[in-house]
Amino acid sequence: MSLDPRVLLRSMFDAAVAAAQPDRCVPPFLPSRPKGRLIVLGAGKASAAMARAVERHWDGPVEGLVVTRYGYAVPTERIEIVEAAHPVPDAAGLRAAQRICDLAASAGADDTVLCLISGGGSALLTQPLDGIGLEDKQAINKALLASGAPISEMNCVRRHLSAVKGGRLAALAHPAKVVTLLISDVPGDNPIDIASGPTVGDPTTSADALAIVRRYRMDLPVAAKALLEAGGGETVKPDDPRLSRNETHIVAAPQASLEAAAAVARDAGFAVHILGDALEGEARDVGAVIGGIAGQVARHGQPFTAPCVLLSGGETTVTLRGNGRGGRNVEFLLSLGLHLGRAPNIWALAGDTDGVDGVEEIAGGFLAPDSLSRAWALGINPQAALDNNDGHGFFGALGDAVVTGPTLTNVNDFRAILIA
Amino acid sequence: MSLDPRVLLRSMFDAAVAAAQPDRCVPPFLPSRPKGRLIVLGAGKASAAMARAVERHWDGPVEGLVVTRYGYAVPTERIEIVEAAHPVPDAAGLRAAQRICDLAASAGADDTVLCLISGGGSALLTQPLDGIGLEDKQAINKALLASGAPISEMNCVRRHLSAVKGGRLAALAHPAKVVTLLISDVPGDNPIDIASGPTVGDPTTSADALAIVRRYRMDLPVAAKALLEAGGGETVKPDDPRLSRNETHIVAAPQASLEAAAAVARDAGFAVHILGDALEGEARDVGAVIGGIAGQVARHGQPFTAPCVLLSGGETTVTLRGNGRGGRNVEFLLSLGLHLGRAPNIWALAGDTDGVDGVEEIAGGFLAPDSLSRAWALGINPQAALDNNDGHGFFGALGDAVVTGPTLTNVNDFRAILIA
Repeated sequence: MSLDPRVLLRSMFDAAVAAAQPDRCVPPFLPSRPKGRLIVLGAGKASAAMARAVERHWDGPVEGLVVTRYGYAVPTERIEIVEAAHPVPDAAGLRAAQRICDLAASAGADDTVLCLISGGGSALLTQPLDGIGLEDKQAINKALLASGAPISEMNCVRRHLSAVKGGRLAALAHPAKVVTLLISDVPGDNPIDIASGPTVGDPTTSADALAIVRRYRMDLPVAAKALLEAGGGETVKPDDPRLSRNETHIVAAPQASLEAAAAVARDAGFAVHILGDALEGEARDVGAVIGGIAGQVARHGQPFTAPCVLLSGGETTVTLRGNGRGGRNVEFLLSLGLHLGRAPNIWALAGDTDGVDGVEEIAGGFLAPDSLSRAWALGINPQAALDNNDGHGFFGALGDAVVTGPTLTNVNDFRAILIA
Repeated sequence: MSLDPRVLLRSMFDAAVAAAQPDRCVPPFLPSRPKGRLIVLGAGKASAAMARAVERHWDGPVEGLVVTRYGYAVPTERIEIVEAAHPVPDAAGLRAAQRICDLAASAGADDTVLCLISGGGSALLTQPLDGIGLEDKQAINKALLASGAPISEMNCVRRHLSAVKGGRLAALAHPAKVVTLLISDVPGDNPIDIASGPTVGDPTTSADALAIVRRYRMDLPVAAKALLEAGGGETVKPDDPRLSRNETHIVAAPQASLEAAAAVARDAGFAVHILGDALEGEARDVGAVIGGIAGQVARHGQPFTAPCVLLSGGETTVTLRGNGRGGRNVEFLLSLGLHLGRAPNIWALAGDTDGVDGVEEIAGGFLAPDSLSRAWALGINPQAALDNNDGHGFFGALGDAVVTGPTLTNVNDFRAILIA
C-alpha cells in the first residue's frame, strides 16, 4: 500500500466531520428569501454554529434566538444565542423556550421561520404544558426511564406532555412557512425523534401516550396523568393544514458522515463496509466484537475480503472503573487493539465527531499494529490502561492522540478499521 | 418466505451441533490399523464422547485412558474414562495425567497412539515439571493472569513449565506414531493453543518464555523462574524427529460448525454472512452491536442486503447483576431483542453448542419480532428480565427455549440472525 494508513484514516475522519460542519451542510438548504422577515429559531448543541452559518450565507435581513448548551455559544451578529443547561433543563432554558415560542407566535404569513435543531435540543427547548411544573417534569423523566419502555415510546409520552414538542412550535408559527434543518444524532434519523420534533407532525396521539403509560405501568405525577386522561396533551398531526407549507431537511447525520469517509477510502482503492451508523454498547465490548469481525476478515476472508475498511458510527458507553483520562472512543480503540493482538496489517482510528472524546479536547486516537509493543517498551501495560479507563493517557504517550479542536457539530462517534 | 423462520433457525443450529458431534467428526480421521496396539489417550470435556466414537467405529483391538470433566463421562467398554476437576486441577487429574504419560511411554514402534483432545484439556491434563508443586502451579496461574499478557504469551510460559504440554506427550510416545484429533474451542484454532498442545511441536523456546516473564514482570515462584533461567523447561520443537511420523487433525471447530449452518440457510435461499467464529465481549453488549448491524441491514441495505442470515460464534461473558435463570446465549438474545425493538422481519436463535447455556440443560432461545410484545402481555418487562439476568426465565415463559440435551461436544456459542 503506497498510502500511509495513518494519513488515510485521518483524511476519512476529517471528511466525516467536514460533512457535518454547519458551514458546509446548512447553506445548501437555506430557504428562498421571504417577502417578510426571516426568523431563526433553534435548539441544540450544534445550533449556535448553525445560526452562525446562516448569518454568513444569508444575504438578507435576519433575526432570531437560538438556545445552546453552556460552552457551545459562538459569536453571532444578528441572531441572539442563549446558553442553558443540558441534559437537565434549568430556568435559563425555560426562559429561552418561552421567548422562542413568543417569537414563533409573532411570525406572519409573509415571514419564514428557519428552525435549527440538533442533538440536545429536547432538554434545551423545554416548555411543559400548563399545570405541569418543573418538579413534575423531573418526576416524569424518572418514571419514563424506570419503565423499561423503548425510547420511541418514552418520546411519545414526552411529546404529549410538552407545549413545544411534537409539531407545536411549528403550529405556533403558523401562518408563517417553517423550514427546519436538522443535524441528527439519533438512531434511525427520524425527525420526530430529534429534539422531540418541535416542528414535525406527530403521527401518535394522546391516547397512544396514555396506552403506553398504562402498558408499562409508568408512575407519572397526578397532573400529567390527568392531562393525558382528559386527552388534553394532543400534539400536531402530520396532516395538520398548519404544517402544509413546511419543509424539513436532515442536513447532517451519522450515515452521511460515514458515507463521506467511505468515499475517501474508496478513492484510495479500498472496499468499504459500513457496519452500522448507530452501534451502541459498552465501548470495550464494542471493541471486542469489531475486533472479532476484523479477525474473521484476516483469518477467513469473511464476511469481507481484505483489503477493506470497516466503518461504524453511533454512541458507545463507558462504565468507569478506574481514574485515568478516558473517553468512549479511545476506550473502544484500546480494547480493539487488545483483541487484535499482534495482527500485522490492521490499523484503526476512533474519534468523536464533536472533537471532544470524554471531557478533554482530544477527539480520539490512532491504533497501529505496533501500538501495544510500543506501549510495553514505554513501560505501559495496555490491559492495565484499559482497566484504568486511561485511553487518552495511553494514546497520548504513544503520540497517537487525534486532535481536531471542538468541531461545533455532532454526529456521534466515528470508527474506522483498515485491514490491508 | 415459505419456510418458518423458527424451523429454519433450529435446523441451522442442529446442523452446527451435528458437525461437531464426535460420532460424526471422529470416524473420518481414524488412523489405519497398526501392526501393534491402538492406544487411545485424551483429555477434555468432549474427549470421553470422542473415545466412545472411536470404540464404535474401530474394528480392531483398542485400549487406553481418557480424562474428562466431572459429569462428562460416557459409558465405554475398552477405553477407561476418568473424571477430574476443571478449571482448577485436582489430585484425580494429576494421577490420570501420570497414567496417561506412562501409557504413552509404554508405546512401541508398531503401536499407534490416538490422542483425543478437546476444550478443557489443559487443566485436565496437568503434569508440572520436577521441582514445581501444586502450590507453585496455582501461583504461576495467578501471576500469568495478573500480568496483562495476551493469552498466546501466557500459554508460551505455561508450556515451558509443564511435563506434558508443548509436544512432550508425543515425545514420550516415540517411537509410536501419534495421531491427534482435536475439537477446537479456541480463537484461531491453532493446535498448540488447544489444551496447550500436548502432542504438537512448539515453535517457541524456553528463552522466549523467560523473555515474556521479564517483559511483563510476572511474579513467578522462585522454582519456576529458576527452571526457565536454567533453560530447563524446553518444549519439543516442530522439526523434532520424534514427531516426524505424527498427524494432527482438527475434526471440529466453531468455523466448521458455522459453515454447516450456513449451508442449511443457503439451501433455503438465503445469503449468509459469517461475522466471526470467535466473537467475545459482555453478552448484552454483543447483542447491542449485532442488533446495530442488523438494523443497518434493515435500514440502509448495508453492509449486506436483506434477505440474509448473520452468523457468529465464539464465547461471550456475563457479568451477574441479578439473580435470574440466565446464560450467555439467552442474555445475548434478550439484549438483541431490546435493541431491535419492533423490527418486523428479524428472527434469531442463540445457543451453546454443548447444549447447556449457563447451568441449566437449556441450550438457548429463539427470538421473534413479537417476542417483546408477547412478554409484556404476560406481564414480563424485557428490560427488567435482562437486568435480572433472567434470560431462561424470559424465553421459557414465552415457550421459546431451545432444548437439545447435553450434546457431549463443544464448539462454543452459536448465533444466527435471519433478516427477511
